[in-house]
Amino acid sequence: MTDDLTRPLHAPRAAAAGGPGLFVTFEGGDGAGKTTQASLLEQWLKEKGRRVVRTREPGGTDVGVRIREIVLHHRGHIDARAEALLYAADRAHHIATHVRPAVARGDVVIQDRYLDSSVAYQGAGRVLDADDVRALSLWATDGLLPDLTVLLDLDPAAARRRLDADDKPFDRLEAEKEDFHARVRAGFLALAAAEPRRFLVLDAETAPDDLAALVREAVAERLG
Amino acid sequence: MTDDLTRPLHAPRAAAAGGPGLFVTFEGGDGAGKTTQASLLEQWLKEKGRRVVRTREPGGTDVGVRIREIVLHHRGHIDARAEALLYAADRAHHIATHVRPAVARGDVVIQDRYLDSSVAYQGAGRVLDADDVRALSLWATDGLLPDLTVLLDLDPAAARRRLDADDKPFDRLEAEKEDFHARVRAGFLALAAAEPRRFLVLDAETAPDDLAALVREAVAERLG
Repeated sequence: MTDDLTRPLHAPRAAAAGGPGLFVTFEGGDGAGKTTQASLLEQWLKEKGRRVVRTREPGGTDVGVRIREIVLHHRGHIDARAEALLYAADRAHHIATHVRPAVARGDVVIQDRYLDSSVAYQGAGRVLDADDVRALSLWATDGLLPDLTVLLDLDPAAARRRLDADDKPFDRLEAEKEDFHARVRAGFLALAAAEPRRFLVLDAETAPDDLAALVREAVAERLG
Repeated sequence: MTDDLTRPLHAPRAAAAGGPGLFVTFEGGDGAGKTTQASLLEQWLKEKGRRVVRTREPGGTDVGVRIREIVLHHRGHIDARAEALLYAADRAHHIATHVRPAVARGDVVIQDRYLDSSVAYQGAGRVLDADDVRALSLWATDGLLPDLTVLLDLDPAAARRRLDADDKPFDRLEAEKEDFHARVRAGFLALAAAEPRRFLVLDAETAPDDLAALVREAVAERLG
């Protein structure tokens, strides 16, 4: 038995925050230096007198912390669609209660990972359709795109060396195989190529201070 | 800044389970008698030698139990889209790991609430588009519709009297206002009208044994 009641999810038109503030995201694989660059940007913005909100997904809100725990630390198998929906739920709550209000009051939001990570990890890396994962995120956030997305691009082998050097235990995602990381990287680069005005793609093996200068330049341009 | 990368979520064509088993859902407001009727159906099926799986959403799996706790017992506000996505995540995992395998091995799955509850509660009752909520559920479950949905239709005032008589504490959803329940009821009835072959609509104030006989008749017909 089938029915004719199936309709596509209405994805709102994607648009940047558009408030007096700015919404900046950092993307890239683990070990690419997102945290370092986010911190350097935050420091520079504060010196210029801007209010800064540092945040991340999953886990940027109280609800998100509980979702993050399910996604990252559940011991058994989680269905791929369920995982994508959990990330989208965290995102919906985080954007509605945390990011949009901050941009509206003029703050600069610096976020570690956003919808591009979902598309690259879930879409390119797993079994789900990348367009579906993107549509899901845009529905969750009522269409919010960052004003600027900094992609720190790093060869997966180099990323692994950095993580090994830190002697940090791998979590569930980090422990997945090398070829998975190669597909994720290709996914990120394809996203950047499709939206060149939103993305700033940087070689993550560049010296941190030089990277920071390039990030500052892109942010200053968007702050006007 | 906008882009042209927004695409609708690809909702798969909706279809009943189609396995050797059967997927039966009970829908209706709290206090309509879903648990009683599910138990009577289970008992009858077992007497006929069928294997039965009783389940529910949210909370039908280990992952779902954790999601249920967030949705029902979080103390603060949860964004409406986040709530819909959490329900969809629970559903995706539950259907993929629990319901589809059971129907495939020939069991009868009797489930307390499914996508019609999401549409009626989230769509008709809240601020979200009912078609979006349905599309989300169908994406989550790769298009699974029940073989039979029993709607126990009850006037909201009668439902409240039943719950008051039980002297049970109301949870977050139950505590919402009377007119919310009236909109939920109207939502359920509209869904049933749109899919008359899937739905069996029964007056929940009918005597339980008479209701059970009508349910058995509909199930027997579908078991062939």
